[in-house]
Amino acid sequence: MTDQSPTRTAEAAPIRLEVEADGVAVLTLTRSAQRNALSLGMMTAIEAALEQIAADAAARVVVLRAEGPAFCAGHDLKEMRASPDRASYEALFAQCSRMMTRIVRLPKPVIAEVSGIATAAGCQLVASCDLAVAATTARFATPGVNLGLFCSTPMVALSRAVGRKHAMEMLLLGQMADAETAYRFGLVNRVVAPEELSDTVMGMARIIASKSPLTLKIGKEAFYAQVEMPLDDAYAYASRVMTENMMARDAEEGIDAFINKRQPVWQGC
Amino acid sequence: MTDQSPTRTAEAAPIRLEVEADGVAVLTLTRSAQRNALSLGMMTAIEAALEQIAADAAARVVVLRAEGPAFCAGHDLKEMRASPDRASYEALFAQCSRMMTRIVRLPKPVIAEVSGIATAAGCQLVASCDLAVAATTARFATPGVNLGLFCSTPMVALSRAVGRKHAMEMLLLGQMADAETAYRFGLVNRVVAPEELSDTVMGMARIIASKSPLTLKIGKEAFYAQVEMPLDDAYAYASRVMTENMMARDAEEGIDAFINKRQPVWQGC
Amino acid sequence: MTDQSPTRTAEAAPIRLEVEADGVAVLTLTRSAQRNALSLGMMTAIEAALEQIAADAAARVVVLRAEGPAFCAGHDLKEMRASPDRASYEALFAQCSRMMTRIVRLPKPVIAEVSGIATAAGCQLVASCDLAVAATTARFATPGVNLGLFCSTPMVALSRAVGRKHAMEMLLLGQMADAETAYRFGLVNRVVAPEELSDTVMGMARIIASKSPLTLKIGKEAFYAQVEMPLDDAYAYASRVMTENMMARDAEEGIDAFINKRQPVWQGC
Repeated sequence: MTDQSPTRTAEAAPIRLEVEADGVAVLTLTRSAQRNALSLGMMTAIEAALEQIAADAAARVVVLRAEGPAFCAGHDLKEMRASPDRASYEALFAQCSRMMTRIVRLPKPVIAEVSGIATAAGCQLVASCDLAVAATTARFATPGVNLGLFCSTPMVALSRAVGRKHAMEMLLLGQMADAETAYRFGLVNRVVAPEELSDTVMGMARIIASKSPLTLKIGKEAFYAQVEMPLDDAYAYASRVMTENMMARDAEEGIDAFINKRQPVWQGC
Repeated sequence: MTDQSPTRTAEAAPIRLEVEADGVAVLTLTRSAQRNALSLGMMTAIEAALEQIAADAAARVVVLRAEGPAFCAGHDLKEMRASPDRASYEALFAQCSRMMTRIVRLPKPVIAEVSGIATAAGCQLVASCDLAVAATTARFATPGVNLGLFCSTPMVALSRAVGRKHAMEMLLLGQMADAETAYRFGLVNRVVAPEELSDTVMGMARIIASKSPLTLKIGKEAFYAQVEMPLDDAYAYASRVMTENMMARDAEEGIDAFINKRQPVWQGC
Repeated sequence: MTDQSPTRTAEAAPIRLEVEADGVAVLTLTRSAQRNALSLGMMTAIEAALEQIAADAAARVVVLRAEGPAFCAGHDLKEMRASPDRASYEALFAQCSRMMTRIVRLPKPVIAEVSGIATAAGCQLVASCDLAVAATTARFATPGVNLGLFCSTPMVALSRAVGRKHAMEMLLLGQMADAETAYRFGLVNRVVAPEELSDTVMGMARIIASKSPLTLKIGKEAFYAQVEMPLDDAYAYASRVMTENMMARDAEEGIDAFINKRQPVWQGC
């Protein structure tokens, strides 16, 4: 493992970024005493880490995990109250939305590994990832309604990940949903025992890391672009994407390897 | 309980509206002999009740329930046949769509409590509510196809509540789906024994009624607005909503109460 | 049974089309030795069959099934590699997208009957059908990522049939999903034992074939049109559709039959 985080300092480092030899970038939230709340500093660190991952050819897939009992408890309420003016709120929500969108737009797949509570913007973080795996100990909520602050930005991600009645159940009641409920809603892809969580996630990550980085980049970008289009536009767009993908060397290599029953050797991105 | 219904008369009253002391407005369909069919009179009464609820600060959440074995059997076919002309049909479907949209746009959450059959526009009514709870005795169908009249307006609500294959299964086959199937589709949030139905629904309603009415209004409106937007627009919009919500006194109060571990005291809307 | 296929020849026929007396058109992929790959010839034959079905008043619903262990293994990779130029790829994906869209736009419901593997564009074929039934032996995948060619056109159909996390799981991992998983995702409507598959599908098909063809045409077209619209537009559109449907004789007949408890007699389309 190589620790590439420029943000790691003695005790204050909110995150840790490690890019493993097999191409898995592990981004760990390390502010466990603050339940990994998304302070401005935490969000800035995550954004910087995502840019670093985007630029690093050795990073092919991202695992987002957290230290401590909380995956992420949402915004830092005390910090928010310290600057109770419109401009500060606007800056905060703009930054948070930009960070969440950066996950969606990152040209590399992101898997959330959730063993504890993921609430408010923390639940949004899970919803924004391409895939998510929960331990049976994980809990999910959009509890802003309990504080008089509806989870309006979290619901952008949540309502695109699960059905409307399920999203509304979480948003209006503000209660914890256990891992099985999140699985039933389609918010997470797997639920496993806590002791199997990291192995399960790393197993998925390594499978993805073994694919062509260019193909993953093409596919992820196309997924979120086409899903917002009317059907005919989506097909016209996706057909162009497929053609470009076919013209790239990795598809030629991959198909040849498949036909000749050998391992493909991918180019870079 | 206070009976506020202006529409309650000796035997013809199609609905009953009661606003309970804890803020739960219970809207009961009372035309059980007609299986609570959505006659013009029934729809007019529901619309009037929704306006009354919207204007009544004491009403914070709505429970929509029905007397008799049918939650709602859809349109009143005999009434429809009595005016078999284009203008009458146009007026009927316009009114029905306006009523369904009024539920979606109502600034207070609406929970459907379903113990019997909910068919055609009755199923649409359930799909249009923010949340729904079914007794094990509930049945759901969009059976218009059986009568040569495809459930085209019901499917607007249905196809936004459940997946496409599930919606098509109901629409093309026209068969009854039991409560468990509706739960699997995500059309209802809970399935409980008939004797637990009202308690379950009232329990959920009281939880919602304990929240800030302003926050519920902000959040519900934002939910249905952002869900139709592309991702970037949705985040830009929701960030503005969050900022406005933060500037309102209920968020200040709620966050302060949360940090100081006390009960919040909400302002009005 | 009447074999109406103009494409049936000695050994090369890629499909077989039979329209049964009860209105069920059975379209069978018969290139089992090539795992029913969607070669240009196969797609041309399917498109021709769909046109034939569209024009044939005796065909009221379509069952799409396949001979052999593979429902459909996607594109014909060897054929693709034989013409490795941009123009050929563009033509291929344009034809494939047109064929998939033709299923969605066909004025008659289409049911996929899947007993074996349905991969890449074969999985797209299942996702594009209005309904799908799987045998417990069925397997689904969008494994293009394994070959360096992301399943970008398949995901247009897949991401409209299932939730985003589920679609991404299939697309990024490229692994087989078994029939139960596809059922959980909402990609298929039923899972049954292999020996019950055809009976189950034919049972569903016959139910649909007993409905008014005009009503099915109106409803299916309206479904896919309204699902892409904002809510208000969808209701305005669907209300017009309902009015037109009411003005048609089949609705008059169907409602009269229902009220008088007799079997309706449908007109043609």
